[in-house]
Amino acid sequence: MNSSDLKFKVIGIVTKPQAESVRQTLHVLFAYLSRKNCTIILDQKIPETINNGAYESVDRETLGKRCDLVIAVGGDGTILNAARSLAHANVPLVGINVGRLGFLADISPDELETSLDEILSGSYREEQRFLLETKVVRDGKVIFEGDSFNDVVVHIRNIARMLEFETRINGEFVNHQRADGIVVSTPTGSTAYALSSGGPILHATLEAITLVPISPHTLSSRPLVVDSNSEINIMICNTNEGNAQVTCDGHLSTDAQVGDHICIRRKQNTVTLLHPRQHEYFEILRAKLNWG
Amino acid sequence: MNSSDLKFKVIGIVTKPQAESVRQTLHVLFAYLSRKNCTIILDQKIPETINNGAYESVDRETLGKRCDLVIAVGGDGTILNAARSLAHANVPLVGINVGRLGFLADISPDELETSLDEILSGSYREEQRFLLETKVVRDGKVIFEGDSFNDVVVHIRNIARMLEFETRINGEFVNHQRADGIVVSTPTGSTAYALSSGGPILHATLEAITLVPISPHTLSSRPLVVDSNSEINIMICNTNEGNAQVTCDGHLSTDAQVGDHICIRRKQNTVTLLHPRQHEYFEILRAKLNWG
Amino acid sequence: MNSSDLKFKVIGIVTKPQAESVRQTLHVLFAYLSRKNCTIILDQKIPETINNGAYESVDRETLGKRCDLVIAVGGDGTILNAARSLAHANVPLVGINVGRLGFLADISPDELETSLDEILSGSYREEQRFLLETKVVRDGKVIFEGDSFNDVVVHIRNIARMLEFETRINGEFVNHQRADGIVVSTPTGSTAYALSSGGPILHATLEAITLVPISPHTLSSRPLVVDSNSEINIMICNTNEGNAQVTCDGHLSTDAQVGDHICIRRKQNTVTLLHPRQHEYFEILRAKLNWG
Amino acid sequence: MNSSDLKFKVIGIVTKPQAESVRQTLHVLFAYLSRKNCTIILDQKIPETINNGAYESVDRETLGKRCDLVIAVGGDGTILNAARSLAHANVPLVGINVGRLGFLADISPDELETSLDEILSGSYREEQRFLLETKVVRDGKVIFEGDSFNDVVVHIRNIARMLEFETRINGEFVNHQRADGIVVSTPTGSTAYALSSGGPILHATLEAITLVPISPHTLSSRPLVVDSNSEINIMICNTNEGNAQVTCDGHLSTDAQVGDHICIRRKQNTVTLLHPRQHEYFEILRAKLNWG
Repeated sequence: MNSSDLKFKVIGIVTKPQAESVRQTLHVLFAYLSRKNCTIILDQKIPETINNGAYESVDRETLGKRCDLVIAVGGDGTILNAARSLAHANVPLVGINVGRLGFLADISPDELETSLDEILSGSYREEQRFLLETKVVRDGKVIFEGDSFNDVVVHIRNIARMLEFETRINGEFVNHQRADGIVVSTPTGSTAYALSSGGPILHATLEAITLVPISPHTLSSRPLVVDSNSEINIMICNTNEGNAQVTCDGHLSTDAQVGDHICIRRKQNTVTLLHPRQHEYFEILRAKLNWG
Repeated sequence: MNSSDLKFKVIGIVTKPQAESVRQTLHVLFAYLSRKNCTIILDQKIPETINNGAYESVDRETLGKRCDLVIAVGGDGTILNAARSLAHANVPLVGINVGRLGFLADISPDELETSLDEILSGSYREEQRFLLETKVVRDGKVIFEGDSFNDVVVHIRNIARMLEFETRINGEFVNHQRADGIVVSTPTGSTAYALSSGGPILHATLEAITLVPISPHTLSSRPLVVDSNSEINIMICNTNEGNAQVTCDGHLSTDAQVGDHICIRRKQNTVTLLHPRQHEYFEILRAKLNWG
Repeated sequence: MNSSDLKFKVIGIVTKPQAESVRQTLHVLFAYLSRKNCTIILDQKIPETINNGAYESVDRETLGKRCDLVIAVGGDGTILNAARSLAHANVPLVGINVGRLGFLADISPDELETSLDEILSGSYREEQRFLLETKVVRDGKVIFEGDSFNDVVVHIRNIARMLEFETRINGEFVNHQRADGIVVSTPTGSTAYALSSGGPILHATLEAITLVPISPHTLSSRPLVVDSNSEINIMICNTNEGNAQVTCDGHLSTDAQVGDHICIRRKQNTVTLLHPRQHEYFEILRAKLNWG
Repeated sequence: MNSSDLKFKVIGIVTKPQAESVRQTLHVLFAYLSRKNCTIILDQKIPETINNGAYESVDRETLGKRCDLVIAVGGDGTILNAARSLAHANVPLVGINVGRLGFLADISPDELETSLDEILSGSYREEQRFLLETKVVRDGKVIFEGDSFNDVVVHIRNIARMLEFETRINGEFVNHQRADGIVVSTPTGSTAYALSSGGPILHATLEAITLVPISPHTLSSRPLVVDSNSEINIMICNTNEGNAQVTCDGHLSTDAQVGDHICIRRKQNTVTLLHPRQHEYFEILRAKLNWG
């Protein structure tokens, strides 16, 4: 196959912070893409020791603009990071897992060539996945903004305290809860922390958001699933002398106080994930959740 | 208000089988609608002792065709019944509860006049809710068909046995499960049996279906939420010498055997529910689930 | 080691109904015990094709009286069966699993000789496990009696109906529930059906019983753990025109009607299980529940 | 009834920190006990504004030694506090709730006289409840000790991190878990935080401890119930650059680090709770959990 037959020619590479552990996979990938005559552009956070000056190195924003496809090498965390930073661009994303199979990084190093052969030539399964944008509003002012591909978690900082909060959806009052916290999750995040907290599995491309209470005081509290276009507002009512913590993808984090509003809604731009044709969503679910 | 100002003029009435308990509410309703100069048409199952020959009495199909609005008087079961039989027609449905507040029958007799004043004059909140259609296929032949507004339950008949079944969604294999059964539920049904079995609450108008395993043998089984347009196929693999039972809305029921496929999908026609403007979805949820 | 050094000399053998699948393991066991100069007595249900007249064959009661030790060869179901029939005798029980590792049958065929060497010479871990005895009382008369090593399940026969029942413990009213049913389980059964229904894991030798509601209508219903000496009384209040089913260990089963009392209490006699010294309870739990 | 007929003559009074809210109930109680010719001794933390120098005021230890009975006025928190500080003494405890009915403080102010009449004359229901003692051991040294009447919670401090820990019971390895934390609870605490986290209800006087994982990563994790004499050891394996927090009754709290052992076992001394004869355990459970 000639590079002129490839659907994607300029390929961006992002990887995880401890890039040394992925060095071998990266070199296999570089060699493969070179043979295909693809142009390789690296995320500038990839250490010089790996790059050796062989490839151009740019910031994430430039990467999004110039590439036809971005390959993330690492684990699901690497894809989460890539997805958040590339959501504004219109570039599809592929994940190669190093270590264990991931929900998102679903190409293993030993099937790298076969899978990329297919994808580069235009044979793949494409998924649109959405992100959430969160604003923490205090006294009418936005004091924090963050994007999530998985989830937004509002949680008490000190487990000896209890959080009280009110939830509104599209302005309609849902309930007043006392709990350790609440997870607001995309379908992507529904197999992560929300699942541990008792939430349902949302099919990856479902246009829905789930709200999962964490250790709720009211025993009839249940996970709620609402349309992805819902505007979710969580108001902190009482922290019992503690502080609340708002966390996006277990990554960005801020404190929240009594009276703060955590406003969450779907980001307009989606992320396009590409998968090998023969990779089925439920196959990964079965493998990851030890079903049968 | 003159009848010429009314948005709905021909009003159908359906009620529950033990109609005597709703007699008083029906007479208040008849009197009210008469004062409004509405035309009243009764479901033919309403006993003569209540009708007294005062109003025309027709079958459910004719009711759907001739009415501008159908009022169901009873409990949620009455609305479920009305919804199934009127889904093919294009007539909106209002529910008056007799006894306890219902999820669906949300107008109480003592607010009957105020609420109907608003609704008849065109001021209401409108919801489209979908139903499921189920086919049980044996050796390539459909041996059972049924509609559900709440849910389809596949369950072992003898609790001393265990059901084994395979689930496929849009042809993709989901999993092989050993369990007492599975609930496939609409958002409407997500607050009924699916909730008791550990399922999430789907917002009433979400275009999604939830699949909730009942006492699953695999401890990592979780409720799954998929798009409402999914084609769900449950194949009975083993009943351990028992029989499986397929039930639509806890109403229509058939036996299923090893090799049978239970094929479930969204019905094309939706049911239009009308609610008083000030009735909020979450308000009913809070009341019914004892939240706070 | 001489047979005179053995702690157990007369060894009873029980196996599962489809005994052909265990033929090979039985013959290894027979040869081993013969070499040890043990006396072998077979349960009379073991087919002649396996016995070939080589060993004496007696009924279960005689087996319990004459043996020093009974070895059950099969799966957990074989041990459940042996435990119920030998609870009245004072003979310890060992389980050899054929096929998958069991919670109870924890000696695999390939460690048969090593493990039995230790056990026969008196080096083992000993556990007392209790059983439940159940009486169904109608109009003051006992219409059914059954023993359970795992659990007693009270369940509606037709899933389209709902069971209403009242639970009393030591005469004290616990609650009135609407549900599909309830599991009353020993610690042994707590890793079986009760676990699938959302119950906790009771340590194998804990003197406690757990009551686990099945798909309860009241969302704040939770599993309850009470002392093993509690007298549990479940009264059927309403079956909504269906029947209830009472099942002991998924084996013995009877119908129950409105007004029937299901009376459950600990059997006085316990069953003594012997395990190889190095077999730890939690090791089996980890293996069976896919922990880590 | 003459004071010479009373079973309890010297009565200690403890109350909650914000004692003003209980002032009225205290004065009713003082008047009642004076009429009975009881000797009243106050906990020294009761403000002078309430005491007015009328009664002797002593520290908690002296209170435990000199009193025949201690009455706690407040909520469940007041009783938890009293139970922890009086566990070493051999004095029974009665709880009067101010505000809502408590699990422990089960005498309401309006039945104060009737209930105390019975109790003082020796007619009551008596319960022995045990406490837990916790030691955090670092490098072989005890760095924290605390008592719990409800529970010990080990939790990650920063919800964006995940805790990894190993649990051992009586030296036997149970499992390695990744989770937000774990609750180790007495029967008393089983209706508090452990219940919110998905634990079972242990009957108040059951000699058992429950271990309930909080948002466990492994979906087949389940609450575990073990004998009250078990020695529980939780070793912190990884905090992912965060800290763990160990909390007793949501009150005493310390940090824990990788390598720390949290050692938990039943305290030898129990607390004796007295209840009015007609107060049943399950009645309070039904009221508090909104059953029926």
